[in-house]
Amino acid sequence: MASEKRLEVVTCTAPVNIAVIKYWGKRDEELILPINSSLSVTLHQDQLKTTTTAAISRDFTEDRIWLNGREEDVGQPRLQACLREIRRLARKRGSDGHEDPLPLSLSYKVHVASVNNFPTAAGLASSAAGYACLAYALARVYGVESDLSEVARRGSGSACRSLYGGFVEWQMGERADGKDSIARQLAPESHWPELRVLILVVSTEKKPTGSTAGMQTSVETSALLRFRAEALVPARMAEMTRCVRERDFQAFGQLTMKDSNQFHATCMDTFPPISYLNDTSQRIIHLVHCFNAHHGQTKVAYTFDAGANAVIFTLDDTVAEFVAAVRHSFPPELNGDKFLKGLPVEPVPLSDELKAALGTDPTPGGIKYIIATQVGPGPQVLDDPGAHLLGPDGLPKAAA
Amino acid sequence: MASEKRLEVVTCTAPVNIAVIKYWGKRDEELILPINSSLSVTLHQDQLKTTTTAAISRDFTEDRIWLNGREEDVGQPRLQACLREIRRLARKRGSDGHEDPLPLSLSYKVHVASVNNFPTAAGLASSAAGYACLAYALARVYGVESDLSEVARRGSGSACRSLYGGFVEWQMGERADGKDSIARQLAPESHWPELRVLILVVSTEKKPTGSTAGMQTSVETSALLRFRAEALVPARMAEMTRCVRERDFQAFGQLTMKDSNQFHATCMDTFPPISYLNDTSQRIIHLVHCFNAHHGQTKVAYTFDAGANAVIFTLDDTVAEFVAAVRHSFPPELNGDKFLKGLPVEPVPLSDELKAALGTDPTPGGIKYIIATQVGPGPQVLDDPGAHLLGPDGLPKAAA
Repeated sequence: MASEKRLEVVTCTAPVNIAVIKYWGKRDEELILPINSSLSVTLHQDQLKTTTTAAISRDFTEDRIWLNGREEDVGQPRLQACLREIRRLARKRGSDGHEDPLPLSLSYKVHVASVNNFPTAAGLASSAAGYACLAYALARVYGVESDLSEVARRGSGSACRSLYGGFVEWQMGERADGKDSIARQLAPESHWPELRVLILVVSTEKKPTGSTAGMQTSVETSALLRFRAEALVPARMAEMTRCVRERDFQAFGQLTMKDSNQFHATCMDTFPPISYLNDTSQRIIHLVHCFNAHHGQTKVAYTFDAGANAVIFTLDDTVAEFVAAVRHSFPPELNGDKFLKGLPVEPVPLSDELKAALGTDPTPGGIKYIIATQVGPGPQVLDDPGAHLLGPDGLPKAAA
Repeated sequence: MASEKRLEVVTCTAPVNIAVIKYWGKRDEELILPINSSLSVTLHQDQLKTTTTAAISRDFTEDRIWLNGREEDVGQPRLQACLREIRRLARKRGSDGHEDPLPLSLSYKVHVASVNNFPTAAGLASSAAGYACLAYALARVYGVESDLSEVARRGSGSACRSLYGGFVEWQMGERADGKDSIARQLAPESHWPELRVLILVVSTEKKPTGSTAGMQTSVETSALLRFRAEALVPARMAEMTRCVRERDFQAFGQLTMKDSNQFHATCMDTFPPISYLNDTSQRIIHLVHCFNAHHGQTKVAYTFDAGANAVIFTLDDTVAEFVAAVRHSFPPELNGDKFLKGLPVEPVPLSDELKAALGTDPTPGGIKYIIATQVGPGPQVLDDPGAHLLGPDGLPKAAA
């Protein structure tokens, strides 16, 4: 039967994840093995996701890939590493004498098409969702059922954390071959239903230093990064795991902020220094601390990755007031409904006391828009054939 | 004879110093003892200085102080600590049976007037020059000849480094009473005649976190700061001392930049985080690295204290080209002669290659003005009675 099918095709989606204990620095550039463990929250795919279709066919004469409608070079090393790794796993499965024979030959070439439902320019970590989705789709189409950490990791380190929903740790591992450097779920997305996530997209022209080059320079030059990875992160991983398990938002929020700050500190200690935070990022940090000080407790926490955008964690009962505080401090240049995307947030007035506490002069247009979202599940397979990004001919259905 | 004089008066000047190995954090808040040693360059008083007149008289009924023409509260703890300490040293000298009896009673009250020849608003470390000048003037008027490190340090830690010209180290010391926490000159101002200093005064509205409160929070919260002070600074002090001794500008410049970056990294690792650098500071950092990359060597180095202003070290043969690069990247809003203060700098054209290397879009008005200066001597006594800021009545000669 399988041999009569000209085309084996599968379409999957995968989420973005945001690290609350940061990954920065590799101990092995080739295998993408990190110098410390990290911990992340998987964001909901209703707001942010990558969709990837993978198809294999005896008729394909070469591997090809289209990202957001544009064909890209399939020969780039990280993509090749993923393809090599998934084929190795598929071959291993076949040679293990698995009862289910491979439906199509491993020598078949693959076509891949991938789109994000969010602008890459937003500076969100699209590579994590992208490579997790690629690994997941390739595994389905090649019939691989083993752990995909390594496949995703070879594309982009943090991509292995996007293979699971909820709260995920990427254990750094100790082995030189990286076999124990894997992601695992600490708690599912249903574990902490009150948790909310706001992405504050900051206006910026500047293209920041890429994270691959950045972390390499940091490992080579920052003594503070080495110290952090070896002496500080292990205890932080344990404490963050406890915070998640016990849903202790106060401690979760504080450690999230401290770890973001420490990551950016090690960037500053890099030579030449790397600075991902701009004046608007600093004003967001200040706003969060003012907001928490006003309430006498940690109600809101920020974290920043390799860019100026802030990701805010808070609980559902605080979202509306914090969004009002953001609007107050960063009067939108877009009109209201375009400024706030994602989950609905009811408008509420700000108290005069809070306004006074926020203090600083407003920065009009400093934040382009907000995406309101929450914790979400891991990668999904889409059963609807209409979802495929590749047509029966193995080419993208619609040009971008 | 001395008893016939109604008024003993002395006027001194003292310089600003800029640390190239940074002081941040006290191990004793009361005695102002640092958690690490630091090393600084004393700037020339032709451009930046504090002038202080101290007068004692049997007719004065209380200690009084005027700063920049305005009377200030003499009761503030740090000022009181300086006064107490200088009187202790004077008493010690008297009780040591010194052949030269004290000219006026130690019980006499003191009047102090002090002015800066540079705007305090420029964010330059005026407290270092101020307390060094106070210590020096008080020592003269009370006849104290011993080491003044402790007197100045009790006013402001880094003030002890302004007691000497040229290149100065402040040894952290080990004793609990701070007697071995003293400044000493590594090399006089004549040691490295080619060295030049440019202060880039950055436009900013924001009043930054004060350094006293800032470093206290850093000591309490930043694990990276503790690690830096204990594990990294000792080797950096030794290396910087070598750079100065051998006039090795390449290594001096690189370590100066790295140490500034590491200091700001520890500020970022503080909780809540402290950020002294703004977008303009970051652009200056980028400009310096582009300039050096273009030349294939470290020709210019930046350092930033607890504010957004950059202090640039370079050699005399590079000043003109770097100033042209600054003008190119930060087109002045002030006209030419007001933009550049201090030592004369000849205008030179920028090569097209350097312009291309600088790359980034210009930021008009980002830098308010430049002060060009060089390494200079320590505190001076002014012999001209016309220099006194206090009149024969012990009150300021001219209201501000």
